[in-house]
Amino acid sequence: MADIAALAAALDGIELSSDRALLRQKSRDFYWYSPILKKQLDGKSGDLYARPKDEAEVLRILAACRAARVPVTTRGGGTGNYGQCVPLEGGVILDMTAMAKPIAITDGVVDVECGMKMIDLDLWARDQGWELKLWPSTKRTATIGGFVAGGGAGVGGIAHGTMRERGNLVGARVATMQDPPVVLDLEGDDASPVNRTYGTTGIMTRIRLPLTPAQDWRDIAIGFEKFTDASAFALALSFADGIPKKMCGVFDSQLPPFFRGIADSVPAGQSLVLTMVAPSGLRALRDLAREHNGTFLAEQSTVEAERDPDKTPFYEYCWNHTTLQVLKKDRGVSYLQCRFPFEDTLAAVEAVRIPFRDEVWMHTECVRFGGRITMSALPVIRWTSEARIYEIIAAFEAAGLGIANPHVLTIEEGSNYRRVPGDQLGFKQRTDPLGLLNPGKMRDFSPVETAA
Amino acid sequence: MADIAALAAALDGIELSSDRALLRQKSRDFYWYSPILKKQLDGKSGDLYARPKDEAEVLRILAACRAARVPVTTRGGGTGNYGQCVPLEGGVILDMTAMAKPIAITDGVVDVECGMKMIDLDLWARDQGWELKLWPSTKRTATIGGFVAGGGAGVGGIAHGTMRERGNLVGARVATMQDPPVVLDLEGDDASPVNRTYGTTGIMTRIRLPLTPAQDWRDIAIGFEKFTDASAFALALSFADGIPKKMCGVFDSQLPPFFRGIADSVPAGQSLVLTMVAPSGLRALRDLAREHNGTFLAEQSTVEAERDPDKTPFYEYCWNHTTLQVLKKDRGVSYLQCRFPFEDTLAAVEAVRIPFRDEVWMHTECVRFGGRITMSALPVIRWTSEARIYEIIAAFEAAGLGIANPHVLTIEEGSNYRRVPGDQLGFKQRTDPLGLLNPGKMRDFSPVETAA
Repeated sequence: MADIAALAAALDGIELSSDRALLRQKSRDFYWYSPILKKQLDGKSGDLYARPKDEAEVLRILAACRAARVPVTTRGGGTGNYGQCVPLEGGVILDMTAMAKPIAITDGVVDVECGMKMIDLDLWARDQGWELKLWPSTKRTATIGGFVAGGGAGVGGIAHGTMRERGNLVGARVATMQDPPVVLDLEGDDASPVNRTYGTTGIMTRIRLPLTPAQDWRDIAIGFEKFTDASAFALALSFADGIPKKMCGVFDSQLPPFFRGIADSVPAGQSLVLTMVAPSGLRALRDLAREHNGTFLAEQSTVEAERDPDKTPFYEYCWNHTTLQVLKKDRGVSYLQCRFPFEDTLAAVEAVRIPFRDEVWMHTECVRFGGRITMSALPVIRWTSEARIYEIIAAFEAAGLGIANPHVLTIEEGSNYRRVPGDQLGFKQRTDPLGLLNPGKMRDFSPVETAA
Repeated sequence: MADIAALAAALDGIELSSDRALLRQKSRDFYWYSPILKKQLDGKSGDLYARPKDEAEVLRILAACRAARVPVTTRGGGTGNYGQCVPLEGGVILDMTAMAKPIAITDGVVDVECGMKMIDLDLWARDQGWELKLWPSTKRTATIGGFVAGGGAGVGGIAHGTMRERGNLVGARVATMQDPPVVLDLEGDDASPVNRTYGTTGIMTRIRLPLTPAQDWRDIAIGFEKFTDASAFALALSFADGIPKKMCGVFDSQLPPFFRGIADSVPAGQSLVLTMVAPSGLRALRDLAREHNGTFLAEQSTVEAERDPDKTPFYEYCWNHTTLQVLKKDRGVSYLQCRFPFEDTLAAVEAVRIPFRDEVWMHTECVRFGGRITMSALPVIRWTSEARIYEIIAAFEAAGLGIANPHVLTIEEGSNYRRVPGDQLGFKQRTDPLGLLNPGKMRDFSPVETAA
């Protein structure tokens, strides 16, 4: 056991804490959506909390931890669902939220410190005519570093794919656990090894992200008597190149009653589509909705809603906020992450929705993967047992779905179709030969140097 | 034969001309790219030229023509290639270029008079932070009305599809040939019957088009030793959701020598890709090009080039400007319009490129149709005979290509995959029962009322 007091002394001048309550709080994320992860991770805690204010402090922390062979687990907003920022072997909790300044927007690329909240970054960019391409449903609390390191999908996926698409990460400054720790400046493909690797391959200090010109998105809620109409409408909207959109989620009729704020607008028994569409596409959206027997139920400005703490932008009912909205009222559920086939997508949705409808409440999100359109799903699932969730996974896989299992801890086991291309393992062998960065999360890694 | 002098007298106060040279000039478009159309259309001419300055004048002209049973053929910039604005039965040439004012941009939708040049409209919109979704390679001379009525595809197709995609036309004001002529205000799907119908179903006076937020597009020229590398790169770029682009054309090595302005930058024998990419995507573009053995050859700002009369934006080598660039030096060529299958697209390109390479110089343009990505082609073809072009068409169709034949006069024969959905024939029966609007261009139409 390393001498934490000595480590703290070596880091004098940096914001630190050994407060047990704070350490417990900062050693958690939203892994508890998974009863399996909850059992594995409850009680895990770091030994020292450190909150650096600049790259120099990050390097001091890494050097001291390397010298003392103390693991370092990095966190942003702590909004992940896979225990990405839960330290499995104690050590230092590296909280990046004090490094939260935007640097500049140049040629549509924002250079930003990794700990900036995404809502703040997006609104700051918006004042200059730009917006983020992608954000999670946790935009109001998540940091940009956490999103790149441990998220990477969400709102914007129907327009821009995920963070794994080449171009969606322009570059990053990355502090390593080499001897001595250094800051690398990685650009383009060279930055892939830090993309969605949970801070196991290096600590992003600054990130360069492409922005997209800001639009005045409209949140639109559309009701359908039949789920299949809602589903067909959503996919048709996704393929409608003439209608600019940022989001399109579909909810079976069990789910809207959990969506406080719009539940009253949705007639009982109706399935729901929530979408974000540019104002110029609204007329075409109405034509398309009419064709699919849809009725406009509610509408608001996305940006006005997210700037108002009393309002709920519709994306806070979507992606994994759907699960959260149900969990607020019913702790007996969990979820899965699925991707449907590109062909016969709607039939595949029905093939898993109908047989499991009593315990699986279907929730799909339209997305682009590699330039092709399909639906992903984050269905809400009535929890019975670990054995049962794996039965459901097996049945879904047999129906042709890909599963990015959110009930496992490691990148390799959980990523599936969300894995970013690139030699992440080889990169980690160079940047973290001792295996001190978030140990246990990259399954295939073994330390290259023996810890003395 | 109607009394043209009496008609002119009835239209006193409107800009008119009976000058033979002017009438011949204003009765032509770029149909002469097709030797077949050239034979059919050379010498066709209207009898009276009219250039209305507002809707009231349009209605006066239509009423007078209806009373006198005189056909009306509408024109904008006259940049079409199918004889869209060539009067087959004489009559009035209705030149819309005096109605060229932008009205306003509201919620990202521009309301504009139909005769405004697209370059002027785009630059005007750009000053307000917007740009056109789509434009033809003839942007510097084409009008927006002509593009909607007789074009509808071009630059922007890889991002937004064509004008036939729902949402890409928000609405239009349309003067009819009913008794009496009226102006209809059509919105959404209701406007489809005037979309790409060559002015046979009504005369658009104002158009409402969705805009997209302006980007500082970069023109990029990339060279490849092998055409197949160029082709694979272009398709991969099209599927790369992380790289925002507006255009992506591929040119077999016979073509770049005809592209004055960049020919010197392209090593002999190299195939070429010309693309317009947002600055934020340039790094990823380089990574992708390297992966496909491509070399950056030239780069410029699209907008700076199009604002400078001495410069050539790269889109003026693309779409049907490719054919024009060759025709400037060699009048012995023509072209086709093709669409490749969505699956195995690259193999289909090779299947027609290789066997015909001596007489067909392959030129593809990446496009989206109904939300899916493929390539269209406007190959330059060494002309031998009408029989031969139909042999080539038959061979291309046998290889799975769709052909939008540019060697025919009617909407029905020429449109194929470019046909806009909707009951255009039924609409024309209501709005032009006498069949006086651009007669002969809608093949399936027969006059409903008998001309007295």
